Amino acid sequence: MAEMLKPDFDPELRVFARAASDDKGPIGMFLAAADLMAKYGLKPAVKVKVIIDSEEEINSPGISAVVAANKALLAADGLVIHDSATHPSGRPTAIFGNRGLTALTLTVYGPRAPLHSGHFGNYAPNPALLLARLLTSMKDENGKVLIPGYYDTTKLSEDDLKVLRSAGDDEAALLKRIGQVDHDKVAPSYQEALQYPSLNIRGMAAASVGDKVANIIPRDATAELDLRTTTEANGEYLAGLIAKHVKAQGFQVLSGPPTEEERAKYPKLASIKLAPAPAEAARQPLDSPIRRWTEKALEQSFAAAGNLPSKPVLIRAMDATVPTYEISHPLGLPFVLVPTVNADNNQHTYDENLRLGNYPTGIRTMLGLLSTPY
Amino acid sequence: MAEMLKPDFDPELRVFARAASDDKGPIGMFLAAADLMAKYGLKPAVKVKVIIDSEEEINSPGISAVVAANKALLAADGLVIHDSATHPSGRPTAIFGNRGLTALTLTVYGPRAPLHSGHFGNYAPNPALLLARLLTSMKDENGKVLIPGYYDTTKLSEDDLKVLRSAGDDEAALLKRIGQVDHDKVAPSYQEALQYPSLNIRGMAAASVGDKVANIIPRDATAELDLRTTTEANGEYLAGLIAKHVKAQGFQVLSGPPTEEERAKYPKLASIKLAPAPAEAARQPLDSPIRRWTEKALEQSFAAAGNLPSKPVLIRAMDATVPTYEISHPLGLPFVLVPTVNADNNQHTYDENLRLGNYPTGIRTMLGLLSTPY
Repeated sequence: MAEMLKPDFDPELRVFARAASDDKGPIGMFLAAADLMAKYGLKPAVKVKVIIDSEEEINSPGISAVVAANKALLAADGLVIHDSATHPSGRPTAIFGNRGLTALTLTVYGPRAPLHSGHFGNYAPNPALLLARLLTSMKDENGKVLIPGYYDTTKLSEDDLKVLRSAGDDEAALLKRIGQVDHDKVAPSYQEALQYPSLNIRGMAAASVGDKVANIIPRDATAELDLRTTTEANGEYLAGLIAKHVKAQGFQVLSGPPTEEERAKYPKLASIKLAPAPAEAARQPLDSPIRRWTEKALEQSFAAAGNLPSKPVLIRAMDATVPTYEISHPLGLPFVLVPTVNADNNQHTYDENLRLGNYPTGIRTMLGLLSTPY
Repeated sequence: MAEMLKPDFDPELRVFARAASDDKGPIGMFLAAADLMAKYGLKPAVKVKVIIDSEEEINSPGISAVVAANKALLAADGLVIHDSATHPSGRPTAIFGNRGLTALTLTVYGPRAPLHSGHFGNYAPNPALLLARLLTSMKDENGKVLIPGYYDTTKLSEDDLKVLRSAGDDEAALLKRIGQVDHDKVAPSYQEALQYPSLNIRGMAAASVGDKVANIIPRDATAELDLRTTTEANGEYLAGLIAKHVKAQGFQVLSGPPTEEERAKYPKLASIKLAPAPAEAARQPLDSPIRRWTEKALEQSFAAAGNLPSKPVLIRAMDATVPTYEISHPLGLPFVLVPTVNADNNQHTYDENLRLGNYPTGIRTMLGLLSTPY
């Protein structure tokens, strides 16, 4: 069987196709692993129940209700999710949590209508500048959030730090890839930074730029923020801290555009609107049977290849959002994410791809898990 | 003739029409004044030459060349421009200068391409935040520009301050009209604030807001700035101060998007692009024959009505841009702007209007000027 997993093609070739990596690739690997086991008359060492969720990219709106309604049918020792991507080093990867996501819209209000910037420049307070000042007050020069309490709930144990440091990211390569010299200094390393909630400006606008620009003082200015949340600091909690901070900067915080009464009363007006349907963070304690099982399965199956790095990269909590909570929480199951596809697969974009070498190693990953007793 | 100038209609009625005030109204008033003088057999006390510029709203691209080519034909003692609006008090108004206008686009660069905010939130520096911080560094809490030298060239004499204070603006009404409680504290009064160069954010953008928002770290962030200039601080001078300030904040200042070499070298990248064709500021010394002539003409003709405020409001330099420089400079003429239309005419917008009461007082203004020897 080992021969079957040695590719007779250049492993660096790539298939470019929508969903090649996210998630048709892993589904294909799982089916290939099952076919191989059947062909060689092998029985899995674990009992397998399969959930296929085709709505992950729209935040899996139905999955929680479906699994909750089928709790007995889906009873298990643990949940393995084959989403996300392996560590760039190519080492087998196991992920024990992911950040959640909450978005909010922060709008700062200026004059009732856009004003002629000649008539009122130097006089009418500009909401774009007020917004800029407000956003600036939220982070320091190093990109660290200054809002009181924002990071306080992330507590990293010695074991956590050990696991985080062992990932061995090539941060110089990471920076080169994104085209920036420097990075925010939220924590000493990339992996450690991802353990904290984030506060990101995902969009910003006041009046128009480019062809449609006009000589006005804009009526309002908006920042769209996304907050990556943790199991200890959910979206409601973080949005609450942000609202408190905005108030502390002298803003009257509204839920929408100001009334005439509010305009006549408060010098600084802002609204905060939470986007619906946040995704919850999820985290599985590292000291757990599912970690020991996964680590063993991955290490043994990769070591068996003879020519592959086998020491698994363990990730305490990954950067982005996967509906882990939405499945594991209703079922009350310990979980692990075991990705198989290349880190640079460009999921969700026009040049999504699967590195062909990840296909046999992905099958090997599936075989390792299927043949290791829990 | 005085009877002709007493309206038998409600002066508060308004004609809503594009160019009603800017500038078909004043042209109509001038023609009506000329008709009246002809009807009563009156000869003007000054020789009149008329320039009609139909391109003011596109910055009068042709006017300088036309007047320069007709210098002999247009030889005169002074230039009277009937653009702009009277003081909100309804007193006759004479304006001896206007700010100029220069625009620039300030772009701050982030990652080479938009990044997934889950993968890189807390790590890749966000250009929207960098831009916010940069804009914040340009002004203090009170809206005063902090860039060294920005205001230094405005020197106000005792006579200037006396004239500025005599305008008697109702700033509470002004704030009520724009719907803001507070104003920037560039100077103690509205009129005085307009004597300084301004720095206004006329537009701002990073990635998308609203329906098109995405969970990314934007690639770049842009602020469109307009600078109202003075005769002492033109656009080139002010843009130079801004570029120096941006450098002092640690940015490498480029003329466009960064090259790969620049990306690999500098942690903070920005570009500054000056918009073409700035409008120049113009200012006529207050101690001049044209001021004395205008003041006398306005005061006498309004006093003659018996029921109108007659003390002229003198404006050292008005807020917005009129192509005064473009006409007066090639001809080498002293100038004055004598507006006739209501202050709240909403020029350039869908609800532009002429207050009907300003039609007879405008004709009176024209008659006063035409019948006063220089």
